[in-house]
Amino acid sequence: MTAKASSDSAREIPEATVARLPVYLRALVTLSDAGTETCSSEELATAAGVNSAKLRKDLSYLGSYGTRGVGYDVDYLRYQIAREIGVTQDWPVVIVGIGNLGHALANYSGFRSRGFRVVALLDADPERHQEVVAGVDVRPFDDLEQIVAEQGVAIGVIATPAVAAQDVANRMVAAGIRSILNFAPVVLAVPDDVDVRKVDLSIELQILAYHEQRKANAS
Amino acid sequence: MTAKASSDSAREIPEATVARLPVYLRALVTLSDAGTETCSSEELATAAGVNSAKLRKDLSYLGSYGTRGVGYDVDYLRYQIAREIGVTQDWPVVIVGIGNLGHALANYSGFRSRGFRVVALLDADPERHQEVVAGVDVRPFDDLEQIVAEQGVAIGVIATPAVAAQDVANRMVAAGIRSILNFAPVVLAVPDDVDVRKVDLSIELQILAYHEQRKANAS
Repeated sequence: MTAKASSDSAREIPEATVARLPVYLRALVTLSDAGTETCSSEELATAAGVNSAKLRKDLSYLGSYGTRGVGYDVDYLRYQIAREIGVTQDWPVVIVGIGNLGHALANYSGFRSRGFRVVALLDADPERHQEVVAGVDVRPFDDLEQIVAEQGVAIGVIATPAVAAQDVANRMVAAGIRSILNFAPVVLAVPDDVDVRKVDLSIELQILAYHEQRKANAS
Repeated sequence: MTAKASSDSAREIPEATVARLPVYLRALVTLSDAGTETCSSEELATAAGVNSAKLRKDLSYLGSYGTRGVGYDVDYLRYQIAREIGVTQDWPVVIVGIGNLGHALANYSGFRSRGFRVVALLDADPERHQEVVAGVDVRPFDDLEQIVAEQGVAIGVIATPAVAAQDVANRMVAAGIRSILNFAPVVLAVPDDVDVRKVDLSIELQILAYHEQRKANAS
């Protein structure tokens, strides 16, 4: 196991590797919760659903090569990946649009356990301003700028209908947010220095459909 | 452009490629909606967030090589990928657990537009059985077996709390469902011939956090 020297900004990790790091982290958490202390690259690759050559290549960017005949130390690798992603930090998050999806996201335990702290829930509808979801008050959307400034919000989550999403994104960007997670079914236009990731809940269903189709053809 | 001969079951497409096909499909739909008729592999790769060598390799499994100097025909490639995934078919889907997330999924337009037809919404709570969500009645969970048999349900979606998810999965498997999309934060045990995909809504947030951290370090 090689310790990672000079942690940040020197190496550029390929985007596809970045996208797989959370998947490795999830697999490591599952292994760790099951009491597994070390794992081979093959075991971890299987748990993460990639091939082991790709896994080893990905982890080499983090300076993690495992130990011959022993494999990877599960908890140490988990820490290394969490640090690389940045989820050992505290990330204040604001969610805009507290309909069914916003409620579900506010209640989603997987955010808090990975360092994402929902500091505010905002909705344009005054009728929602009475609500408290997962211990957080729903507040007027117009409080956005104040909350971003006070809480140092880094990431904005858009869970509004499609028609409202671009306006919400514009206000988030103007307030200083540079990372947006968009659940609305619309492509957002933002400045180059703003990262937007769009969640498509149907992607996983499509992967299932592919396998289902092959099973149907095989039988 | 090479037509794809002998469509199915002959070639084995790598799992990582399968997982990227819906992403290419989404990018192609966006290009098509914008009126784009042809695109280079570089343009499509950028839109899909992968490198163009990987894109070309992935599409070669479908027998799609584009035309030198012209690129890919957007609508034809879209059709090819949709057929390969199987989303040109009709996929009856049942959603179990009609809390906030189940409501959001039932209302999610991205399912219907990709061939996934929500034929039933099931919940164990009798108080929910009065509800109609997105035009579909919420029915008792105990109707599962009957609905699967009558409607030929291929895919089950679990949107229950974690504690209920394994029981729901067991009932789905016993009823004949072989593909499960699990939103509950728990790992399900199922027979080998059942595909389970687990959605982790925090994966995309973690990718944003990685970039946010690097931006913070760079400034």
